[in-house]
Amino acid sequence: YTETGKASFYSSKLEGRKMANGDKYRPGKLTAAHKTLPFGTRLKVTNLDTKKSVKVKVTDRGPFSPGRVVDLSYKAADKVDMIKAGVAPVKIKVIGKKKES
Amino acid sequence: YTETGKASFYSSKLEGRKMANGDKYRPGKLTAAHKTLPFGTRLKVTNLDTKKSVKVKVTDRGPFSPGRVVDLSYKAADKVDMIKAGVAPVKIKVIGKKKES
Repeated sequence: YTETGKASFYSSKLEGRKMANGDKYRPGKLTAAHKTLPFGTRLKVTNLDTKKSVKVKVTDRGPFSPGRVVDLSYKAADKVDMIKAGVAPVKIKVIGKKKES
Repeated sequence: YTETGKASFYSSKLEGRKMANGDKYRPGKLTAAHKTLPFGTRLKVTNLDTKKSVKVKVTDRGPFSPGRVVDLSYKAADKVDMIKAGVAPVKIKVIGKKKES
């Protein structure tokens, strides 16, 4: 399964907030929000502008703005170099599912 | 006082969260986050891409990403047509100060 669209990233204001899977959002972890994929799904997210990619785990629901397919944690957004742009075109690919710990 | 830079807008996940001025974030109000201007400061924010502007009240602190000068509430971001873009170049101008109610 692959999907393309735009990625945004979590506001620093969300640090410590409970995500939809029950864990608290931590900016330094490699997590993502997706509207429908099960929690624990592993995604490879590639920034089509920078060609950089990162592997993340789905832990939350969102994003709810038109055209957005994924919200990345701060660390994941930094790894694909989209902090300055704020929003970036991405391709997401499901690479596996890990049981929630 | 005027300033130019990029604007982003609040995640819908922040609805109900307490802002730095003590009020809860409401997506339907015309509010903004700025790093230093006093709470209650009135700003005119103009989207330099769409030329649309909106008047907002500073109620929160942020944004903390490089190059960002203001974070707009959902309604304010909608009024300047930046929901789809996610981030937009803006000019902000202080137009007055209203006492916090």
